[in-house]
Amino acid sequence: MRPGIVTLTTDFGGVGPYVAAMKGVLLGMAPGVAIVDVCHSIAPQNILEGAFVLEGIVKAFPEGTVHLAVVDPGVGTARRMLAIRTAGQWFVLPDNGLITGVAGLYGVEAAWEIANPRLARGEVAPTFHGRDVLAPAAAHILKGGDPAELGPATERFVTLRNFEPTPAERGCIGEVIFRDAFGNLITNIGEAHLAARPSRDWVVEVGGRRIDGVARTYGESPPGSLIALLGSTGWVEVAVVNGDAGRLLSAGPGATVWLRPKS
Amino acid sequence: MRPGIVTLTTDFGGVGPYVAAMKGVLLGMAPGVAIVDVCHSIAPQNILEGAFVLEGIVKAFPEGTVHLAVVDPGVGTARRMLAIRTAGQWFVLPDNGLITGVAGLYGVEAAWEIANPRLARGEVAPTFHGRDVLAPAAAHILKGGDPAELGPATERFVTLRNFEPTPAERGCIGEVIFRDAFGNLITNIGEAHLAARPSRDWVVEVGGRRIDGVARTYGESPPGSLIALLGSTGWVEVAVVNGDAGRLLSAGPGATVWLRPKS
Amino acid sequence: MRPGIVTLTTDFGGVGPYVAAMKGVLLGMAPGVAIVDVCHSIAPQNILEGAFVLEGIVKAFPEGTVHLAVVDPGVGTARRMLAIRTAGQWFVLPDNGLITGVAGLYGVEAAWEIANPRLARGEVAPTFHGRDVLAPAAAHILKGGDPAELGPATERFVTLRNFEPTPAERGCIGEVIFRDAFGNLITNIGEAHLAARPSRDWVVEVGGRRIDGVARTYGESPPGSLIALLGSTGWVEVAVVNGDAGRLLSAGPGATVWLRPKS
Repeated sequence: MRPGIVTLTTDFGGVGPYVAAMKGVLLGMAPGVAIVDVCHSIAPQNILEGAFVLEGIVKAFPEGTVHLAVVDPGVGTARRMLAIRTAGQWFVLPDNGLITGVAGLYGVEAAWEIANPRLARGEVAPTFHGRDVLAPAAAHILKGGDPAELGPATERFVTLRNFEPTPAERGCIGEVIFRDAFGNLITNIGEAHLAARPSRDWVVEVGGRRIDGVARTYGESPPGSLIALLGSTGWVEVAVVNGDAGRLLSAGPGATVWLRPKS
Repeated sequence: MRPGIVTLTTDFGGVGPYVAAMKGVLLGMAPGVAIVDVCHSIAPQNILEGAFVLEGIVKAFPEGTVHLAVVDPGVGTARRMLAIRTAGQWFVLPDNGLITGVAGLYGVEAAWEIANPRLARGEVAPTFHGRDVLAPAAAHILKGGDPAELGPATERFVTLRNFEPTPAERGCIGEVIFRDAFGNLITNIGEAHLAARPSRDWVVEVGGRRIDGVARTYGESPPGSLIALLGSTGWVEVAVVNGDAGRLLSAGPGATVWLRPKS
Repeated sequence: MRPGIVTLTTDFGGVGPYVAAMKGVLLGMAPGVAIVDVCHSIAPQNILEGAFVLEGIVKAFPEGTVHLAVVDPGVGTARRMLAIRTAGQWFVLPDNGLITGVAGLYGVEAAWEIANPRLARGEVAPTFHGRDVLAPAAAHILKGGDPAELGPATERFVTLRNFEPTPAERGCIGEVIFRDAFGNLITNIGEAHLAARPSRDWVVEVGGRRIDGVARTYGESPPGSLIALLGSTGWVEVAVVNGDAGRLLSAGPGATVWLRPKS
């Protein structure tokens, strides 16, 4: 049997032994598994950003991939941990809304609480469930284990309200979710929100600036232009062609973004 | 034979071809090896931080793992390079104290100098022993080679004095080793230093602030509280619940930390 | 058949789902492939830095390695994408000069345009050719596919002029390409430019400072010294022994560097 793929998404940054400790547990319990770093630079405890990143990778991964995500401000409290099956893949994560994007796009086929202490590591540190509970649970699934051994099946899970923009004035009010390495501002306004009219008939407002139309590629406008475009993962981005929109607008995660019909 | 696992810990940052060059050598000489990035963000030439990170990952990795570490301010000088066997795992690194934490916790079973030019790469760059000497040595061990072929056995190795806090006033004076992505300040005061009395009967002082007791989890105190807790890798950390202790205290690596009995 | 090695070099930073999406496509289309992150911190759209990094890793990787690189300011415009075979390895990248260093050092054995839509992903996002075109092309090659199926063979490709310093006054005028994690300034002045006289008979000028001679190792001068040395990847670097040259000189990528004979 092919040992499978596990991806890691955390807010641990690039510092310290933490990510490696999870990898060691995975490799020890599921030898031969291919480990894929998604990113470890989710803003600290920013569940919303984590939910967007998870949603953005699903289509690219093959069936059976296990996605382990740790953005977990509630570690050590009573929040549950879940193993969720959807889109032919698995998600192993705290029940705090990280699954919101994936669940919204693909639904949830089945979910189990991760609650069986016999499947956790011998000594569970109250501040590192990623290593001691989630990594062993991911290994269990990677080895073809029965998910019901992890804990009871469950049908409820937390979702984040502000993952979706708020409808307003025939458009919507959304927000910037993250700023990528180029300074592009990725918003929570998606392809579906643009469906009501042609892309060029929308106006995007952010940071006091008004942008006419939603483009399909950076190359349509001259360098330096402030544009809105539908990005490669299906979200509206605000960008400066060959420049840095975040710096130009002094804007980043949390900034309000309006989508309005052109009047 | 399973090709094994090699981990990489360096202060190379995320920049340039350096880490990848080591990976290429490892994959070329030990095909199929699983390479695990521990972290490459050790503060430049901060051997102490490197020693802590190495110590923090050992328990998570399976027997036979080879840990290659390069924090090497002495590259190009006469400092030795070592292959050290301990805790069923291997450490391949410059002899400058990087092994301090691992050796203190697990002892050292056996050590060899890496001195055989026939096992190094053809042309050894005087500024990149990680690629040209340590990676080939790691590959040699990963392939099941005899460590004695690397060079003479040795019983001495450098250890760092300030890895351990200094006993003082029925407690000790330690220091901050690194600041993690959340702003938590990880110190060199460990579980053993707390053994003399219950956790709540200690006081931790850092950056002019006094913290009562050492907690077990972030969740016990309200958001915004400055706390000390015993972290997941066995070290006392100073943290702000859902906040950034490094920013609050304007403190980072090297800051002095007092552990005193509550009076 | 061994599934092979693919390396990734991008300017995507550590943020978002982008790098992981490429990895997912690679693992889905070429199961078992070993993925090596070279670096994802190329300065945004800095093709020159990307070209240097690619050139710096070739010697370390085994025959048959596929290097996928995405530094692509022209994504969405008409720039071509290429699969290039050289030095027994493969390079899959936009035709914008990223191959300059590799081509200059090893020549180019053969090149093909990547133009066959049947080998791309079903829906090609106009802003993410790395995931939708280059990753599938890399997978095709990793699986031993005929490169001619990718598109027509080609003999022309873009190279960057300022990859090479300009000859001047019996020496040359080059520039800083990148600043590594230690603050060392890596220049585009290479070993060949030093051949005309002994290393100690050159003077390097940068940031208003004059450095006598080009050393072979950091260890020859006392801590704090500003030195020039021939680095491990064959380029002249400006460094401060146990210090940070970039900070001392307030210099970084693009800074002018003179190499002159000592008079």
